[in-house]
Amino acid sequence: MEASVKIKVPFYDLDPMKVVWHGNYIKYFEKARCALLEKAGLDYREMERLGYAFPVVKMSVKYINPSEFGQELEVSARIVPCENFLHIKYLAKDLKSGEKICSAETKQMCVSIENKTSCFELPAIIKERICR
Amino acid sequence: MEASVKIKVPFYDLDPMKVVWHGNYIKYFEKARCALLEKAGLDYREMERLGYAFPVVKMSVKYINPSEFGQELEVSARIVPCENFLHIKYLAKDLKSGEKICSAETKQMCVSIENKTSCFELPAIIKERICR
Amino acid sequence: MEASVKIKVPFYDLDPMKVVWHGNYIKYFEKARCALLEKAGLDYREMERLGYAFPVVKMSVKYINPSEFGQELEVSARIVPCENFLHIKYLAKDLKSGEKICSAETKQMCVSIENKTSCFELPAIIKERICR
Amino acid sequence: MEASVKIKVPFYDLDPMKVVWHGNYIKYFEKARCALLEKAGLDYREMERLGYAFPVVKMSVKYINPSEFGQELEVSARIVPCENFLHIKYLAKDLKSGEKICSAETKQMCVSIENKTSCFELPAIIKERICR
Repeated sequence: MEASVKIKVPFYDLDPMKVVWHGNYIKYFEKARCALLEKAGLDYREMERLGYAFPVVKMSVKYINPSEFGQELEVSARIVPCENFLHIKYLAKDLKSGEKICSAETKQMCVSIENKTSCFELPAIIKERICR
Repeated sequence: MEASVKIKVPFYDLDPMKVVWHGNYIKYFEKARCALLEKAGLDYREMERLGYAFPVVKMSVKYINPSEFGQELEVSARIVPCENFLHIKYLAKDLKSGEKICSAETKQMCVSIENKTSCFELPAIIKERICR
Repeated sequence: MEASVKIKVPFYDLDPMKVVWHGNYIKYFEKARCALLEKAGLDYREMERLGYAFPVVKMSVKYINPSEFGQELEVSARIVPCENFLHIKYLAKDLKSGEKICSAETKQMCVSIENKTSCFELPAIIKERICR
Repeated sequence: MEASVKIKVPFYDLDPMKVVWHGNYIKYFEKARCALLEKAGLDYREMERLGYAFPVVKMSVKYINPSEFGQELEVSARIVPCENFLHIKYLAKDLKSGEKICSAETKQMCVSIENKTSCFELPAIIKERICR
């Protein structure tokens, strides 16, 4: 399963080098992840209703090219099959040229909201929806 | 009642002009407000315990001088006596020279968390603590 | 002259009350302002090319209703005729119901980049473009 | 070489789970890195003066425990000896209990500002200062 969002680089995300500050890509990845989970019928309110939260426990980012004010990016997110974590890979590209801007991956652990315990395996209902 | 915090301008708050992006001062004012409310025994968890939330309903900011990477600021917040709102004024100054950077004010309405209704007057317990 | 942008409230803009943190609307207003200035042929790189910067010197915001995760907003910006400042008014509304979320205004002073002096009147070339 | 900063978790860094949003730790790590580089006599303006920029090209973060409003953290950064990159490791801990909150590492490439080329080895002047 995969989903993507378009981002037009806003002024407030720039740093003094006139490129997007590296920490701001985390927001772009989250937008793509939310689009993906919405597509899977699992946005954060639905997860809460099901009794689970999915805190990010690992994240890695590889920065390839900078991006500038007004540049249009396409940021995609796709599920990596995994028994134990919600594992997602991301790619941000220039919308027109396809030039790679940065790639990333995150692992999210499943936590039961009620008893605050970690689930060492993804609950069946979650697996079903993200593996469609 | 008054309180202040020190801010050393971080890199990630700068914009392409190499000065603090105007929207980031809102965070500095909030830090000063939190210090003030903590001093009054009213930090956001205590307010929650008392059953109230204080959403900002009005804010105005006057920008006087820019501030730069590493510059040390002192940001103060003080209560303006007011029956109906939590009314606070702010001033951000250069810590050494005293040069004014920006000033602001906010008004926060009191909302009862339980029945989601606005209080048109500040509850007695709130007034007592902030007027000490 | 007027322009507007659509915002789908992202998770990372929420606060513990599960609504957009008040300081984040400044980013939404900036997005609308940038759309407006782009329409006027005056995006920040063109302004820089013309030799001017437009720092915000005054900003006021009135918060009317909260907005939630995934809510779709329309944020509009329009020029207020003014000899001395770039004066812009903003309105953020729920995209579907039209319910007002917040309104704001900003004043930006014109500064000559070369000699760092403030212009007490907007340069003719700027006035022309924004008054079309 | 090592340096650390103290962070009191601000309200505006919290997410709807009432803990610091995972992307905001990047700012805490940057604060620690800036303290480290300042100690080495290499803050971002000095680097600029020497003709170099140091964009982050890789970053990984491991989230161990959440942190809450008002919690006091100590975030440390230390140089990992490396010929080709500015390689830094980070650790955020609860200031009092020492409980680990999250750890991270970044690699920054050295770029010559004048001719926009990457340096495949750190310049001698940089190595000297960070290896003291």
